[in-house]
Amino acid sequence: MRKNPERRQALVDAAIEVLAGEGARGLTFRAVDAQAEVPIGTASNYFASRDDLLTQAGGRIYERLLPDEATLAEARSGPQDRARYAALMHELVDRIIAFNTGFLALLELRLESTRRPELREVLTRRIRADIQDNVDYHAASGLPGDSTAVVLLMLSLNWLIVERLTLPGVFTDKEAHDLVDVLVERLVRE
Amino acid sequence: MRKNPERRQALVDAAIEVLAGEGARGLTFRAVDAQAEVPIGTASNYFASRDDLLTQAGGRIYERLLPDEATLAEARSGPQDRARYAALMHELVDRIIAFNTGFLALLELRLESTRRPELREVLTRRIRADIQDNVDYHAASGLPGDSTAVVLLMLSLNWLIVERLTLPGVFTDKEAHDLVDVLVERLVRE
Repeated sequence: MRKNPERRQALVDAAIEVLAGEGARGLTFRAVDAQAEVPIGTASNYFASRDDLLTQAGGRIYERLLPDEATLAEARSGPQDRARYAALMHELVDRIIAFNTGFLALLELRLESTRRPELREVLTRRIRADIQDNVDYHAASGLPGDSTAVVLLMLSLNWLIVERLTLPGVFTDKEAHDLVDVLVERLVRE
Repeated sequence: MRKNPERRQALVDAAIEVLAGEGARGLTFRAVDAQAEVPIGTASNYFASRDDLLTQAGGRIYERLLPDEATLAEARSGPQDRARYAALMHELVDRIIAFNTGFLALLELRLESTRRPELREVLTRRIRADIQDNVDYHAASGLPGDSTAVVLLMLSLNWLIVERLTLPGVFTDKEAHDLVDVLVERLVRE
């Protein structure tokens, strides 16, 4: 197996674009080679199997969705109140929507995982860790509300993002923005 | 175009199973013929195009998700309080999960609609009508809470269903059940 880490990452990133653009069934080594503009056969030298590539794509999406240092520093500064909570949720939604192919690829992976037990296991661990990370961040932050509110916000914001990315005409920009505010208002108790 | 309505419906139902099982890219007239156990060429006699079939599958899923008369009668009887609201939400989640291929097919259609403007338009109208139906039902029911709570419950329950159907190990049955209760408790205000 080839070892060049930049090349590997470029191939995984190409796989994310193929997943979002062509669906899970469109994800072949050849499609990834074409997307990454590398010679045919390259992807098959870097990944043991298609499942291996799917799994790495799932991990990479989460990596790319992490906030940068400036965003984290900004989040930690100032009063950790309900207004800050709402601001963080808006930032989160905007960040995920900005990487729209990542979120769409993740939905494709979820659907594919209904047909692939190994992928399902990897994704389940990843999502559980993501929920726990959010709960832990909240607990350490001093933000109001309980861990249940963290989970409920994840549920509702995830589907709001599905709506925005797949059927953007269902809610206007203002409606979507206001829904985030009212979710924080109702779910997060002092 | 052929006109036998039972045959047409059987083909649309077969298309839903193909969408859920094989993904949107797996949906071909041939795959539908095979799923419906009819001679090759049947589906192509009933639908003007693949888009026509996708659109009809979307409509049919909503039709099959409607509650039956007994469920509606039960919903209308007795006090229309917060406990009833929670019971209705549990019934809704269970009903959608029982038709798991319908929900998965709808997710496939949403992802496919990012690549097909016509399908996106049809689905957007369908989802907006569905939201309005729920808001209208609520307004006429005497149940507590406002129309915003109806929309917020739809958002959060939809993703809870995504979780249950694609990665059932993320939440236990009890956790998922309790999340529905706490959503109603926090989102629905007297």
